[in-house]
Amino acid sequence: MSGEFDIIERYFAPLSEGFSGAFALGDDAASLDATDLVVTKDLLVEGVHFRAKDPRKSVAQKALRVNLSDLAAKGARPVGYFLGCVWPSNVKEEMIGEFVSGLSEDQDAYKISLMGGDTTVQVQKGAPLTISVTMIGARGSAGMIRRSGAKANDDLYVSGTIGDAGLGLAVLNNEFKVAPAHKAFLVGRYQLPSPRISLGGALSGHASAAIDISDGLAADAGHIAAQSKVAIDLFADKLPLSEAAKTWLDRQNLEEGLARLAGAGDDYEILFTAPPSRRRSIEMASQVTKTPIARIGAVTKGAGVRLVAATGEAIDISRTGFDHFSR
Amino acid sequence: MSGEFDIIERYFAPLSEGFSGAFALGDDAASLDATDLVVTKDLLVEGVHFRAKDPRKSVAQKALRVNLSDLAAKGARPVGYFLGCVWPSNVKEEMIGEFVSGLSEDQDAYKISLMGGDTTVQVQKGAPLTISVTMIGARGSAGMIRRSGAKANDDLYVSGTIGDAGLGLAVLNNEFKVAPAHKAFLVGRYQLPSPRISLGGALSGHASAAIDISDGLAADAGHIAAQSKVAIDLFADKLPLSEAAKTWLDRQNLEEGLARLAGAGDDYEILFTAPPSRRRSIEMASQVTKTPIARIGAVTKGAGVRLVAATGEAIDISRTGFDHFSR
Repeated sequence: MSGEFDIIERYFAPLSEGFSGAFALGDDAASLDATDLVVTKDLLVEGVHFRAKDPRKSVAQKALRVNLSDLAAKGARPVGYFLGCVWPSNVKEEMIGEFVSGLSEDQDAYKISLMGGDTTVQVQKGAPLTISVTMIGARGSAGMIRRSGAKANDDLYVSGTIGDAGLGLAVLNNEFKVAPAHKAFLVGRYQLPSPRISLGGALSGHASAAIDISDGLAADAGHIAAQSKVAIDLFADKLPLSEAAKTWLDRQNLEEGLARLAGAGDDYEILFTAPPSRRRSIEMASQVTKTPIARIGAVTKGAGVRLVAATGEAIDISRTGFDHFSR
Repeated sequence: MSGEFDIIERYFAPLSEGFSGAFALGDDAASLDATDLVVTKDLLVEGVHFRAKDPRKSVAQKALRVNLSDLAAKGARPVGYFLGCVWPSNVKEEMIGEFVSGLSEDQDAYKISLMGGDTTVQVQKGAPLTISVTMIGARGSAGMIRRSGAKANDDLYVSGTIGDAGLGLAVLNNEFKVAPAHKAFLVGRYQLPSPRISLGGALSGHASAAIDISDGLAADAGHIAAQSKVAIDLFADKLPLSEAAKTWLDRQNLEEGLARLAGAGDDYEILFTAPPSRRRSIEMASQVTKTPIARIGAVTKGAGVRLVAATGEAIDISRTGFDHFSR
């Protein structure tokens, strides 16, 4: 195993080449000439946010993408990131190389650079790989899309399909089996989310509020509702589902299955609201960015989130949404 | 134990009151209107950077202060920070409260605000408390002080005294005993560094290169030497030592003792270079900021760092300097 400074020079410094203010990681700090920043920070811990068996390459990509997804939901364009890594005590250079290959690919895909960071090694045997990313973005011209701007009578939309990542995790944990093609799709949705960067930019100036789905559709709708001081109805029969999720749902009690999909985290789709006067603009944003968008609910006066069946009855979602402090 | 969002609202949101762009931690990202930023990121991991027994309050303060120290060495003024916390699986609200009290005190002392972050809990029993801080500063009017600006014939200076924190850690680990008053002083230097913020600002425009001492005097002098492509001589008889360190040194083989002090990490003093024409300015900076400064060496042509005795002979420091990947 090489020394700390060799590792930084060989593996990490090349990742900073696109950003001169990183000084090739050869200084204590980065120098950043920018204005109108949007900054987000998400931690990923082995055993909490990813499985010990997940490939290190996709773990690196997931660490970037969950942060990119936050920026997307805020209508911001990604610029670069600061990275903190705590490697397990038995780290091998090969593991670092695999991890860095994931960072490198996603840097190219999302046009971002490493700006700085810190790296260390666990002393405690078996202690988890831990990744901390602080992602820097540039605010959209219409400003940051907040969680707090939803108004009664707004429509509620979501990109892509929901519940796939949660099913992927359940399949990995051998909770149930699905057809091989569905397994590959669902596991991919769990291990490697696709942040909706271009959609986020296109929503700036149109969406009244937005959030990316990490805790789960219902829980994240709850965050918009709480910050905007409104109530949100989710229309159960409008939830956009993948073929894999539909096939799974067909074998469940319908209401329980829907509640589970609405409660599953890690989708990294954008959930957003906009006034009905913007329906054409939202449709345009969907077309221009080639991103499927579904209108799945409505904002009303009041508080809280309901999942409403086609019959008009509410489906119980009281046990959905991930809470790191209560499990 | 309260839920995640209660914890954030009760303990962390009040820390963000001084920064409106944090939206009271009620959104996915922070909005930052600033230019000329200096950004640094340091991780602290239990068992690596602090002891499991260290008070949580001082651990929180150390997490901020090691980052503040980086900004100080760059001549930057601190503005705020993003915080990532991974709590141990048995975390109690009391522990969070104690930790937050440390953050709160230091926010007041250093005039900074919490800007955003992420918090989660270890699933794995016994896995370490892990803290990630990304600290944002405003660049000094003369620009960021780099590691790379030292020139042959420059003087080398250091603030405060060196080696104390390393001795403090050794005392805590029962490697040797010292008088009670000395113990309190040395342990304090290890657990609670005092970043040299005002000195850093005063050095902007005068220092040709600077770094804060975290790996150890000799190792960090080595970082300046490597980045500036120069050699550095440290004058062994000029190293500024506290009374506690002097007392300890009197009982050691002099050369071995000096090498140990020059190799001890965690001092968080500023090591910097400046041309001889700036000696008056450096003295002024010391007086105005009430910070002791010692001239401890010289920059020459060549490469590497030597610790030179008064006799002119080099003292062996080959085994000094902390490397997280090689231990």
